[in-house]
Amino acid sequence: MTALQSTPANAPERHTVPELRLAIAGLGTVGCAVIAALVKDGAVLAARAGRPLRVIAVSARDRSKDRGLDLSGIAWHEDPTMLAACDEVDLIVEVIGGEAGAAKALAQAAFAAGKPLVTANKALLARHGLELAEQAEKQGVSLNFEAAIAGGIPIVKTLREALIGNRVKHVYGILNGTCNYILTRMEQDKIDFAACLREAQRLGYAEADPTFDVDGFDTAHKLALLTTLAFGTRLAPDAVYVEGIRGITPADIEAADELGYRIKLLGVARLTQEGIEQRVHPTLVPKNAAIARIGGVLNAVAIDANLAGEMVLAGAGAGGNATASAILADIVDIARGVRVPTFGQPAASLDVYRPAPIQHHEGGYFIRLSVKDRPGAFAAIATSMAQRSISLKSIVQRRGAEKSDSDYQPVMIITHETCETRLRAALDDISNGGVTLGAPRVIRIEMLR
Amino acid sequence: MTALQSTPANAPERHTVPELRLAIAGLGTVGCAVIAALVKDGAVLAARAGRPLRVIAVSARDRSKDRGLDLSGIAWHEDPTMLAACDEVDLIVEVIGGEAGAAKALAQAAFAAGKPLVTANKALLARHGLELAEQAEKQGVSLNFEAAIAGGIPIVKTLREALIGNRVKHVYGILNGTCNYILTRMEQDKIDFAACLREAQRLGYAEADPTFDVDGFDTAHKLALLTTLAFGTRLAPDAVYVEGIRGITPADIEAADELGYRIKLLGVARLTQEGIEQRVHPTLVPKNAAIARIGGVLNAVAIDANLAGEMVLAGAGAGGNATASAILADIVDIARGVRVPTFGQPAASLDVYRPAPIQHHEGGYFIRLSVKDRPGAFAAIATSMAQRSISLKSIVQRRGAEKSDSDYQPVMIITHETCETRLRAALDDISNGGVTLGAPRVIRIEMLR
Repeated sequence: MTALQSTPANAPERHTVPELRLAIAGLGTVGCAVIAALVKDGAVLAARAGRPLRVIAVSARDRSKDRGLDLSGIAWHEDPTMLAACDEVDLIVEVIGGEAGAAKALAQAAFAAGKPLVTANKALLARHGLELAEQAEKQGVSLNFEAAIAGGIPIVKTLREALIGNRVKHVYGILNGTCNYILTRMEQDKIDFAACLREAQRLGYAEADPTFDVDGFDTAHKLALLTTLAFGTRLAPDAVYVEGIRGITPADIEAADELGYRIKLLGVARLTQEGIEQRVHPTLVPKNAAIARIGGVLNAVAIDANLAGEMVLAGAGAGGNATASAILADIVDIARGVRVPTFGQPAASLDVYRPAPIQHHEGGYFIRLSVKDRPGAFAAIATSMAQRSISLKSIVQRRGAEKSDSDYQPVMIITHETCETRLRAALDDISNGGVTLGAPRVIRIEMLR
Repeated sequence: MTALQSTPANAPERHTVPELRLAIAGLGTVGCAVIAALVKDGAVLAARAGRPLRVIAVSARDRSKDRGLDLSGIAWHEDPTMLAACDEVDLIVEVIGGEAGAAKALAQAAFAAGKPLVTANKALLARHGLELAEQAEKQGVSLNFEAAIAGGIPIVKTLREALIGNRVKHVYGILNGTCNYILTRMEQDKIDFAACLREAQRLGYAEADPTFDVDGFDTAHKLALLTTLAFGTRLAPDAVYVEGIRGITPADIEAADELGYRIKLLGVARLTQEGIEQRVHPTLVPKNAAIARIGGVLNAVAIDANLAGEMVLAGAGAGGNATASAILADIVDIARGVRVPTFGQPAASLDVYRPAPIQHHEGGYFIRLSVKDRPGAFAAIATSMAQRSISLKSIVQRRGAEKSDSDYQPVMIITHETCETRLRAALDDISNGGVTLGAPRVIRIEMLR
């Protein structure tokens, strides 16, 4: 602590409000980072929150594990729901994880006991957020989840408070650091997905079972929450169209690069005439877009809103400290008596989610085809596109790139805005024409507009 | 309004809380944008705020002016302080501007009457923010000013709420759209400051008297507020070191470009061993930094904090709608009963500001010299730098660039991190050596670290 920061000693008449007594369920990296910050900067936090914050109870499975923290004087419960039953506890922090089980039981028990909950659990909220928010609101307590999306980036607060006067039109982001790390490494070092994944696992950026991250499900959970915050509609995680990054090859990345794009796994929610699109898939973003420059494990969210215009927030999306930063903000809000509806308006007033099916998606596309190296092949492709009224922005034949000794050459196409159904029909026509080999690679393009 | 958004009709049992009655002082672009949004999206905003928001009184000088708004049924006061005297008014929005006079009188009258104030007035707050915040806190009402810094970008909320668990180490930003527009145009079209300024004035991006913007004072006011929010110290606008952009030439911009940098007018606050630096000056930022890519009238703020790490927020920094977005957020916070200390902790508990003088600034520098085109001149410069222990990152002699027929050639130097005093001493040595013409151009370099 430096002398530049306020301490209770020079704060006049603080602490007439009683201290806020916290219980932390889950003592992994995040739970421990929260406790460490509360211990290290307790005096400053008390001045800012207007009252002392004190951890009085924790819950975790293994009591013998050395976590580098002094937990003496803090009650220990093996069963996390016991934290809610404890009269002395004012607020519960849930960092257990998992979309049901102990985390859900704890949330329900907390609200039943009239205690606010701070959670980092996107899976739980994407699945059960609506009923939990209703329960919290019925009890008049907060359900805060800044840490559940994009770690330390204050995207929940931005949507449910800072942009509350706006109509959001479009929100998208890099929401999974594991995928972004892998895609960045694939691009920078021209190595394939499997090798990058192994490296990410070795560095602790990816789980032993990487499905949840690399197949897009984690991003989909976060996107479902963003959609509800941005558009005031009920959570619809099962309506999210999901494609992961396993299929991306160094050749895709190189081709995108050549045409001025990078490939990112984005979660995208967009208001259309039909309803709201929710999609997670590898996406081409122009290299000069802010989001294209977010490398490694960083996260970023771009928003287009009617009053504020286009905005981008970028920063650390994961890690113990960044997540603890978000959790501490949620805790201090509660300490200050700040209570905002979980999703920016009462959960019971959220609208029905009206999906815009992916088949009706309108946007630009990147297509990579292996095309027979004979006169007329190129023309056949261009004609198929023209017949479906698809206008091409660029079409590039790269001779001798990947299979220089083959009869097939890669052809890369960037289309102007068109409809997914129409594009798929054109690609069927092209496949049936017999001038291409294998299935075409199709990647959607995204930009604020 | 689309069917996707909530309306009071489908919100169960809203509006048991009475409506919030607003008074708007100042009917310029921003005041009118706030009213227009409240009229257009009133139903949605009521659902989100938990109560209807209604403008019942306004104040402006010219009643006859057509503002494109239906103001019938809204009380009109020529004297803005009358808004505070009106019993029916629950909250006052001040968008008059000016660091004292009517704006200050209105703020004081509002708090004296126990009414919260929302303001976009950075000059007022930089000068009188401490006493006004104390007055508001004594009365238990809010003084909110999201719109005062970086327009629609939620930097106030981010520092005083989202990062409240952090120790901020460094915060800097592009905080003035006029300057950024001029610098961007100078770079892109290689035209000089005066021509860009005239164009900015023609487009309405710069005032007839541009001093406040181009000489850095507007940025300094915003920086003083950011410093208080970030470091919990008392406002010290007079301690801000200020250099504007009038002296920047196309040659500077071109030279910076050649070395991999762009020139931006930044406001920078940084915690050092000695205290807190507050400086506003043209700055070299590496082209690959997020902040370098913020063009035109956009704003951006970069923050380095102990838990959240490095974060960048970018978006529209000015304009009626973006500013209205921030004002609506502040209004809705008050409607929801959210009250946070103006500067993130009680104003009376803010610490004394301890300045770190610019002479002690440590950083990299860009230097441009006109050097005599004779053997040994280059060596004389390098030797002077070495004698002051200043290590050079690059030194470039560009032959025939600006005065190809002259005896002098431009030499550009990028130094590694050094101290301002030492650098100035070395430059004095060089000037006294007689190998250079005129005063050297010195521009500081900034990056998160």
